[in-house]
Amino acid sequence: MEKQNLPVIFVTNDDGVNARGIKALIEAVRPFGKIVVVAPTEGQSGMGHAITIKVPLRLKKVHEEDNLLIYSCNGTPADCVKLGVYEVIGRVPDFLVSGINHGSNASISVVYSGTIAGAVEACLYGVPAVGFSLCDWNPEADFTAAQSVVRTIVKNLITNKLPKWTCLNVNIPAVSLEKLQGYKVCHQTHGVWREEFEKRNDPGGNPYYWLKGEFQNFEPENMENDEWALANHYVAVTPIRIDFTDYKFMAELKNWNYNL
Amino acid sequence: MEKQNLPVIFVTNDDGVNARGIKALIEAVRPFGKIVVVAPTEGQSGMGHAITIKVPLRLKKVHEEDNLLIYSCNGTPADCVKLGVYEVIGRVPDFLVSGINHGSNASISVVYSGTIAGAVEACLYGVPAVGFSLCDWNPEADFTAAQSVVRTIVKNLITNKLPKWTCLNVNIPAVSLEKLQGYKVCHQTHGVWREEFEKRNDPGGNPYYWLKGEFQNFEPENMENDEWALANHYVAVTPIRIDFTDYKFMAELKNWNYNL
Repeated sequence: MEKQNLPVIFVTNDDGVNARGIKALIEAVRPFGKIVVVAPTEGQSGMGHAITIKVPLRLKKVHEEDNLLIYSCNGTPADCVKLGVYEVIGRVPDFLVSGINHGSNASISVVYSGTIAGAVEACLYGVPAVGFSLCDWNPEADFTAAQSVVRTIVKNLITNKLPKWTCLNVNIPAVSLEKLQGYKVCHQTHGVWREEFEKRNDPGGNPYYWLKGEFQNFEPENMENDEWALANHYVAVTPIRIDFTDYKFMAELKNWNYNL
Repeated sequence: MEKQNLPVIFVTNDDGVNARGIKALIEAVRPFGKIVVVAPTEGQSGMGHAITIKVPLRLKKVHEEDNLLIYSCNGTPADCVKLGVYEVIGRVPDFLVSGINHGSNASISVVYSGTIAGAVEACLYGVPAVGFSLCDWNPEADFTAAQSVVRTIVKNLITNKLPKWTCLNVNIPAVSLEKLQGYKVCHQTHGVWREEFEKRNDPGGNPYYWLKGEFQNFEPENMENDEWALANHYVAVTPIRIDFTDYKFMAELKNWNYNL
């Protein structure tokens, strides 16, 4: 009966419902509430905040047990959150956690990230939301330290408040728990993915391109950003604001000549 | 010969290379430079800042004439900008304009918008970039007033500077040029799309969902936001910052208990 008062914790990701990262995340948050999972059927990396408007969405219940309900959805992480809120739970959840992503979402990767889009979408509804990413692309990556980070952050979510319109982007370095140096509150590193397309020809002789980028850090000396934190084995905790307005620039922009 | 010194203006959109909106945009910017267009083969609305990593990208030259080069690409707007910069032009363009989108990208639509993603992607490379949207879904929409707005903004882009990491989201009300009240520099309206999924059953009796949302404005009385400007027939000029860090919250976030 006591379980009735547990908070509803919504879980999603962009690597798909069968990814090891989401299984590690579910395991880490189970002690804290009733868990509802809606996650993509297939991996959706790089989908950013895409939503699905041209094909119908499908929801499939894939698992149900005591305080754990798991659905898959053929859409993006943002679709999963919308469907979860409106069709599965029928109300906004108490918390949302997204991930644990296989690979970093620090710096500008935040704009391409389906993991973060899941958190942002929930944040729009006023839900305290966090995206977790482990900086390790290895399919056999060890999520033990990341699970400890999830528990610490979720305990804080329960006792502290996030501002409205702000969610968290938490990136975890690929080191063991013993080697973690602690937590660092950071700003989003100014950087960019320099793309080098790999150009190939198909059997008919027509060219096609594979995207393959290399990250360029514009402020490698800055010790306050998330890339520095990760390189120095700190968990990078970056607060993300979903009002993107450049307020500082508004006054100058008002002085442009709109009579041209 | 004089044409050699014209700036390179990159044009993209999310409604696809054959949309009326991009044709209106190309026509409006042609007097200002050499125009290079890379736009999606098909419409990519709602794709947000998605990038394509699972399927190879194709580029196809669809038109070439004096100072106008048009390619289509099977990817998203962000892909189009990357391919355009690295494979078509071989350097960053002098300006980027995206659109003219069929439909508003005001308020929180900015996170779902492929039009804005095109501008943001260029902004990452330091290119002055603007996304234009006409608040009219009608396929027969009149782009005359929007073209006038494009010319005014582009003249300003040439004579003024945008801060690094800031691009513009310009939304144009669906009224004639005579009825336009002028320009208003705005902040992104705090609002959300309340989703009402339309649930149907397929011939096999299995349910599927169509996404159909209704916009909810959290600050309808605020006269400084983009929704107010549009409702009152002003062009809404909203500066968008691509560092999403919530700097104000950082101090408080440092006080969370990370030893839990």
